[in-house]
Amino acid sequence: MSRTLEYPKTARNTVVRRGHRGKYDLETIHTLINTSLVLNVSFAPSPDTDEDFPVILPMIGVMGSFENPSAGLDEPLDCYLHGYVSNRLNNLVRKAHDAGKPGLPLCLSATKVDGLLLALSGFNHSYNYRSACLFGYANIVTDPEEIVYGMRIITDKVVRNRWDNTRLPPTKADIASTGVLRVTIKTGSGKIKADPPSDDKADMENEEMRQSVWAGYIPVTENLGEPVPAVYNRVDAVPEYVAQHRSDVNDESKQYSEELVQKVLQAQ
Amino acid sequence: MSRTLEYPKTARNTVVRRGHRGKYDLETIHTLINTSLVLNVSFAPSPDTDEDFPVILPMIGVMGSFENPSAGLDEPLDCYLHGYVSNRLNNLVRKAHDAGKPGLPLCLSATKVDGLLLALSGFNHSYNYRSACLFGYANIVTDPEEIVYGMRIITDKVVRNRWDNTRLPPTKADIASTGVLRVTIKTGSGKIKADPPSDDKADMENEEMRQSVWAGYIPVTENLGEPVPAVYNRVDAVPEYVAQHRSDVNDESKQYSEELVQKVLQAQ
Repeated sequence: MSRTLEYPKTARNTVVRRGHRGKYDLETIHTLINTSLVLNVSFAPSPDTDEDFPVILPMIGVMGSFENPSAGLDEPLDCYLHGYVSNRLNNLVRKAHDAGKPGLPLCLSATKVDGLLLALSGFNHSYNYRSACLFGYANIVTDPEEIVYGMRIITDKVVRNRWDNTRLPPTKADIASTGVLRVTIKTGSGKIKADPPSDDKADMENEEMRQSVWAGYIPVTENLGEPVPAVYNRVDAVPEYVAQHRSDVNDESKQYSEELVQKVLQAQ
Repeated sequence: MSRTLEYPKTARNTVVRRGHRGKYDLETIHTLINTSLVLNVSFAPSPDTDEDFPVILPMIGVMGSFENPSAGLDEPLDCYLHGYVSNRLNNLVRKAHDAGKPGLPLCLSATKVDGLLLALSGFNHSYNYRSACLFGYANIVTDPEEIVYGMRIITDKVVRNRWDNTRLPPTKADIASTGVLRVTIKTGSGKIKADPPSDDKADMENEEMRQSVWAGYIPVTENLGEPVPAVYNRVDAVPEYVAQHRSDVNDESKQYSEELVQKVLQAQ
């Protein structure tokens, strides 16, 4: 019998409010990270400066294991990050490494808004959403093979099967100019809200007000539009794997959205 | 003659790489914050604990001025945040306040992905995007009138003109149970990429490879779906302001997306 792996619940990651919305299983959290186009990556200001503010950078990230590339999303994985690694971020990572630390402490988060919940009271308005948060230690990937591994899974995250359909193999210059961070995950959590609108008892009993205030739900979806060729493209038609990726992503998004609409329509 | 207000450029917020993409004018940045359904709010771990990791919370936020409610988006504004204010966040804000600090240092960020740039080389893949980042000091709003002001502009951010069409006036219980943070902005920056795909010279000259690798662009849009009534809704039709908000948001999104597609198709 298989066991569902979960991130350990600690004071750090336990979803205190509305605890039933908290998700800790690796597959749910890793899937949210992998299907979000952008991750928000936060690091604290350097303790040896007088800077006040943490920083958030948008980056592309995907879960993977260089040691065990066939590992499933329900298994322990690292997060590979790509994007502009600023001098400051680079220096902080190096400094953490040189100080013998396990890496630079990062928080990674991904959030999808699935719909707007319009209650009778403005104070009960809310969103349906799916969010995931991971805490881990970042290091710069230096092994050329691991850089290529990271770029492969990041590229295939953007469009499934894209890597094998790009110009290959990578050159030494490609690899030398590419910054990839590997984040060793320490813990994480997810939170999913997938509810109909709801109101307080007093508002539900206010029949007169309810005749004039509309209560309902507006679905929100992210859609991939029709692919267009670059002016320098020489390939006649949009390749099948690109069209397939687009329709798969849009179908998944539409299906989840329709499930939520059914929940709203069928709530008692 | 009017002057365009900009956030001051400091080491903290200056966009070093691809500096031409950096945006500092208040209107651009405030518009990005206001039109993003969700903000990522980051705070550093408390310095008096041995915690390593910063935290990112998704929250709803909007720019406004309680003192000068008619101020435009091109004027200095505060950011009002709503969402679950965790005990930890609450305690950190109070602690900062009690220590005589101007508030808890936060980073707020908003990112929209506008399209996927598929270059010939996997290493030149990229996104078109719009992102904004604000740095400021958060305090808990305690004045009941300012709480109501914050909730009004947050609700109207979710759906334009919604507040006046909800159950009003707010009750004492509504106000007492609602956490609103006001963030006094110190500085900020934005970054916009709106480019066609591009590749290195060596790849552009590789005619054989170019016969087989598709290069192009996939637009990404966020769409509001058809509104559905809550089961307890008593109002016959979807109100005009809801339908109007939906079509305005979708039209703006479609128009910007089409501009980018034209840029891709017309690049030389």
